[in-house]
Order: sequence, then structure tokens, then C-alpha cells
Amino acid sequence: MVMKADKSFQEYYPDHLSHCYGCGRLNEYGLHIKSYWHGEESVCSFLPKEYQIAVKGYVYGGLIASIIDCHATGTAAAAVYRKEGRPMGSKPYIRFLTGSLSVDYLQPTPSGVALDLRARVKEIKGRKVVVDVELTAGHKLCVRGKVVAIRVPENILG
Amino acid sequence: MVMKADKSFQEYYPDHLSHCYGCGRLNEYGLHIKSYWHGEESVCSFLPKEYQIAVKGYVYGGLIASIIDCHATGTAAAAVYRKEGRPMGSKPYIRFLTGSLSVDYLQPTPSGVALDLRARVKEIKGRKVVVDVELTAGHKLCVRGKVVAIRVPENILG
Repeated sequence: MVMKADKSFQEYYPDHLSHCYGCGRLNEYGLHIKSYWHGEESVCSFLPKEYQIAVKGYVYGGLIASIIDCHATGTAAAAVYRKEGRPMGSKPYIRFLTGSLSVDYLQPTPSGVALDLRARVKEIKGRKVVVDVELTAGHKLCVRGKVVAIRVPENILG
Repeated sequence: MVMKADKSFQEYYPDHLSHCYGCGRLNEYGLHIKSYWHGEESVCSFLPKEYQIAVKGYVYGGLIASIIDCHATGTAAAAVYRKEGRPMGSKPYIRFLTGSLSVDYLQPTPSGVALDLRARVKEIKGRKVVVDVELTAGHKLCVRGKVVAIRVPENILG
């Protein structure tokens, strides 16, 4: 079992940046993914709904792309807070959007079990953070993702 | 206005392959995207829900990845039916799954307007079809995607 901090990355996002369908705690229809540090990696566990499938028995690839995306941009923000030695959620806010997302579906991802994501920051360079993500289901590595996250300029974050 | 055939690609999928969250007509919670030929390109128009956002005013990137994915795999199947000179939906069924998906978010995609996708088949080689997709919103090119689609073996399609 992974030890978790009390609050997820996403719970530190200010209200006006918490409407994301993937990770916003204020989006009532959203996925509400939650990400945490686990040493140098960040982790996220997500149980898809029964209907979030591609074919019976296998998880929908677009959902997988979605949770990889939000877990990675959240990790990018947390990594820069950590690098700057600042508490999560402190001002000026640090938030990232997705410049590019690539996903390799290594094998079909079984439904009915929690998906475990682990992310690792590969590079922080200027406003750009590159994050690699692995997704396992029942200890099987099913998907690899890479996100190039771009830091949102402070003056439009409020 | 784009001229459309009577039925979308997805309406030819057999029932047991029509539960996909992105494009399955039998998934009652799904997105129900619909794709059509328009000359050498395939097109799809999709109006996101109000809550499918990243931040207020802009569409959620994971949703964009999802509709690119389903539009591209549907296009791959339609292209191979066309190449083989067979009517859509005829047996043996032709269906594709996603080997890899990459998405470049060129600029934020505004919400509140229909997203227009256009796809073009770049390569058909063995079981692999490469499809390029462009997404415009209000005539602004916002996103480019590429999908490597892999043909599902006939013996597991039923």
C-alpha cells in the first residue's frame, strides 16, 4: 500500500482552477482524479465506471489518455512547487496545461480493477516539464504515456 | 455544410462492438461520436457539454484526445472496407484498436462551439493504419492528432 500525504495535489488547486473535467474537485460530473507523491514518483489510483469501456471487459482508451493527462499536469505543478521549495497551493499559483500528450497502448487494459498510475518528471526546462507515466492494472503494465506540460503564465492565473 | 451519407461509420458496427464509451451507439452514457466520409477525408462534428472543460471557457483536453481516438479508429475501419471494395459492416468485420495516440494542443480549444474533426489516412500497411486528424473550433485550428490503429484479428471479433 502506498503511503499518502493528507491532501492530493488537486485539493490544493484554487477554486477558480478546479473545474477541470478530469481533476477539478468542483466539477460535479468529472473524474476527480487524485495524485500524491510517493518518493520521487507521483501516484494515482482510479477505478473506471462500468460503462467507461472500449469493448466489454476492457477500459476505454480515451479515459486512459484523460487520467494520464491530468495526473501528469498535476505532477508537473507539484514538482515545480517542490523545486522552488514552496508549499503546494501558495501564490503565485503554479499550474500547467498540456502541450502534447502521447499514449502507447501496450496491451488492452482490463476493466473492473483499479488503474494505478505512476509518474516521473523527466525534465524541467524553462516553462516546460516533461512527465512520463506508466499505467498498470492488476500489476500488469498496460499503457505508457508522455506529457509535455507548459506552465501557465502567472498573470492569467488570478 | 458537409454532405453526409445516411449512416455514420459507427452505425455499421455490429451490436457486440457498439459499447465503446466514445463511439458506441449502445453505450447509454457515452459520447456517441459519428464519423462520415467527405471525399478522401472523414469528418466528425461534436459539441462538448458545458462541464467538459479544463478551465472555464476551454474544452477538456482528455475529451479532445477521446474524440480524436474514436474518429481515427472508425476512419481506419472505413478506409479498409473501402480499399477492399466491401460495404461497411459486411462480414468478416473490420475493426481497429488504438496502438498509439499522440495529440498536440496548438492552442486552447474554446468551449460552447462545435468541434470539427477532419481525418486523413496516411498509411495502410499490413494490420496497421496511420490516421492524421485536425480539430478546428470556429474555424480555428486548435489541435492536431495522430493515431496508429491496429486491426483486430477476425477470429476474436465474433
